Amino acid sequence: MTTKTMDLENTLQWLAGFSEGTAGVTRLLYDKVWSEAHDALRGWMIELGFSVYHDEAGNLFGRVQGRTDEVILTGSHLDSVTNGGSYDGAYGIIASILSVHALVQQHGTPEKTLEVVVFCEEEGSRFPYTYLGSKYLTGAVAASDLEIKDKEGITIAEAKANAGFPETLLPGGRADIEKFLEIHIEQGNQLETSGESIGVAEAIVGQHRYNVYVTGKANHAGTTPMAFRSDAMEGASAMIQSALRLAREKGDPLVATVGQMEVTPNAVNVIPGFVRFSLDIRHPENADLTETSVEIQTLFEQIAEKFGLTVTMERFMQVEPVKMKQEMCQDLADICDAQKQPYRRMFSGAGHDAQVMGSHFPSALLFVPSKDGVSHAPHEFTAPEHLEAGLQVMQEALKQWAYEINDEKEQMQS
Amino acid sequence: MTTKTMDLENTLQWLAGFSEGTAGVTRLLYDKVWSEAHDALRGWMIELGFSVYHDEAGNLFGRVQGRTDEVILTGSHLDSVTNGGSYDGAYGIIASILSVHALVQQHGTPEKTLEVVVFCEEEGSRFPYTYLGSKYLTGAVAASDLEIKDKEGITIAEAKANAGFPETLLPGGRADIEKFLEIHIEQGNQLETSGESIGVAEAIVGQHRYNVYVTGKANHAGTTPMAFRSDAMEGASAMIQSALRLAREKGDPLVATVGQMEVTPNAVNVIPGFVRFSLDIRHPENADLTETSVEIQTLFEQIAEKFGLTVTMERFMQVEPVKMKQEMCQDLADICDAQKQPYRRMFSGAGHDAQVMGSHFPSALLFVPSKDGVSHAPHEFTAPEHLEAGLQVMQEALKQWAYEINDEKEQMQS
Repeated sequence: MTTKTMDLENTLQWLAGFSEGTAGVTRLLYDKVWSEAHDALRGWMIELGFSVYHDEAGNLFGRVQGRTDEVILTGSHLDSVTNGGSYDGAYGIIASILSVHALVQQHGTPEKTLEVVVFCEEEGSRFPYTYLGSKYLTGAVAASDLEIKDKEGITIAEAKANAGFPETLLPGGRADIEKFLEIHIEQGNQLETSGESIGVAEAIVGQHRYNVYVTGKANHAGTTPMAFRSDAMEGASAMIQSALRLAREKGDPLVATVGQMEVTPNAVNVIPGFVRFSLDIRHPENADLTETSVEIQTLFEQIAEKFGLTVTMERFMQVEPVKMKQEMCQDLADICDAQKQPYRRMFSGAGHDAQVMGSHFPSALLFVPSKDGVSHAPHEFTAPEHLEAGLQVMQEALKQWAYEINDEKEQMQS
Repeated sequence: MTTKTMDLENTLQWLAGFSEGTAGVTRLLYDKVWSEAHDALRGWMIELGFSVYHDEAGNLFGRVQGRTDEVILTGSHLDSVTNGGSYDGAYGIIASILSVHALVQQHGTPEKTLEVVVFCEEEGSRFPYTYLGSKYLTGAVAASDLEIKDKEGITIAEAKANAGFPETLLPGGRADIEKFLEIHIEQGNQLETSGESIGVAEAIVGQHRYNVYVTGKANHAGTTPMAFRSDAMEGASAMIQSALRLAREKGDPLVATVGQMEVTPNAVNVIPGFVRFSLDIRHPENADLTETSVEIQTLFEQIAEKFGLTVTMERFMQVEPVKMKQEMCQDLADICDAQKQPYRRMFSGAGHDAQVMGSHFPSALLFVPSKDGVSHAPHEFTAPEHLEAGLQVMQEALKQWAYEINDEKEQMQS
């Protein structure tokens, strides 16, 4: 069997083989296995008849020139987190290649130009920087971003040059993209829980991330009566309770998470004088996100006062919610209906290239179920029937968007 | 000025000079400055006319032989935590030496034998082992204890031999001690808050220390709706709140502290799947300690169930409360009254040599105020008038216990 004749599952396994280490898939931007995977996908797309090229960032494209230069773009990212799975990013790339190839096989030259994009990077797992690939397409990469270093002190620019791409970046940004479609595993368990095969993302949530600093007074755990304590741990635990309770009360689609905590001095027999914890709040509406942040800040200040502490909330990340293109979502929903695929309109709680693309180009994002909601782990899994269902919806959408324009025009003219 | 003529404050400064590093006092068991301090105290006590000797553990004694061999012992520990202060341990040693010296100067040979003890170690700051000095006097040191290693891999036995003491220990244990008295800084702020100069400890609290393991399910912070979470941090923070609230409601003398927390995977954007936190509970009555532990365990289990988590409490330390000798406490209270020193009967929330001694010998423990309740820090401070007040109470108690026996007998005989 050559790559040319491989099906969806074979191809996912094949691509997962380009990995460092043993547990799951590890494929970091511009490293050896990334370059090998890049070259292998290039070779496969050439075999399938695509015009293949890459840009200065290392994004790989497979182009099928249409009657016009307006591009219907589809794809996902090539990189993987350390010890990730076989589906995150990879499924979107392979489904895009197979869909476009099948369309060309069945319908020939499209009206609009079809392009598959293999984004160089999305996860931020080598460099403390995310969405390099999609940012470059939107012209949002700054020259200074290339000076960001990995753990070994290698800059993005150096790593890029080592992988055979130019050390610098042209400004980037494309003006020819008419629509972008990404398909991705859900990374949550909403589809699995409700038994639906397809998720149509209406928006990708915005995020506020905070460091919360709680300062009390470190003191002896035995000799300080309860009434004389300014216990940063007592205050922090009350704050965490209050924030998560608020999130539970407000309910979907709001989520709040305290994932990190650092205690000082962190000794069994010393009342903590200082606690830092992280707070991650997400919601698809900016107003709700801001309102929740303000409410939480008020709760935290009340708790700090009650326990004789001080609290500071420092926002270190703010990502605006991005709405997917409503007409594209409707097309996808209609296709699901036509294909009798149970689907749900939902929000994406995780960030995706479609978020960056969606801030510049009409974009849509499809999900397929993740078993047990697991992602970024070796046992990430999506059942073959769901993978196939997603591909069929994607393929039909690309057909409508790239092939059926003239039909409409003809109908209108007739 | 020679050591012979130094007063309490000079001597505290002089002894604090035997220290490693710059911030506060660092004097670890058997190291260079510890040995220098040991030798200096030996020299000072010889100057003052004591019979000086040490035992196999490195405890230093200054003896004033009385008419009988029954020993009234007084003292504290020579070692200091890293970056500790000038008073912890040192004050008890110096007050003992000055008291006994003053008594002999004023009253000559005592009826009972007076001994000052400079305990080699109490803090556990070099080896993960505490109370070596007082344990040796009670015969509670096991041969295997000497194999315990410091961070450099040096055993207690090796360090002891390097400092010039025998590598092995005789079984230890003394049968000639009739009473033991220790004076120590409070390390809390009860005396300072109430404006009293002297604390008479009625008991040293018992301690239960636990590791609490909370297990949920790590999951994506963005894609997991609140209702589908098993968030170990959410459960842990509720447990911490419940335990500390219970301790506040029960009030003095109960204290509970959560000083350590470890979160897994400890990432901003991952719901914690696992949290370990420490819980330290102290109370002077064993029954209350056990009752509180059981109540907390019940609360934790209820919270775990509510949040879909599992919880395990693993007790890694259990220290029984030790009562000080009631008659000795009464003598000390009477002396405070007679000297018009405001005092309070209280509990010791911290462990002391008097705790180990008190489990084998009639023992008492005096406290003087700690400014802001601070100890184990360079800015540990007790005002000169409090240091002096403590010394006067101690001296009078030693006088009554070592000199006034025959008076009583004479009175009874007359």
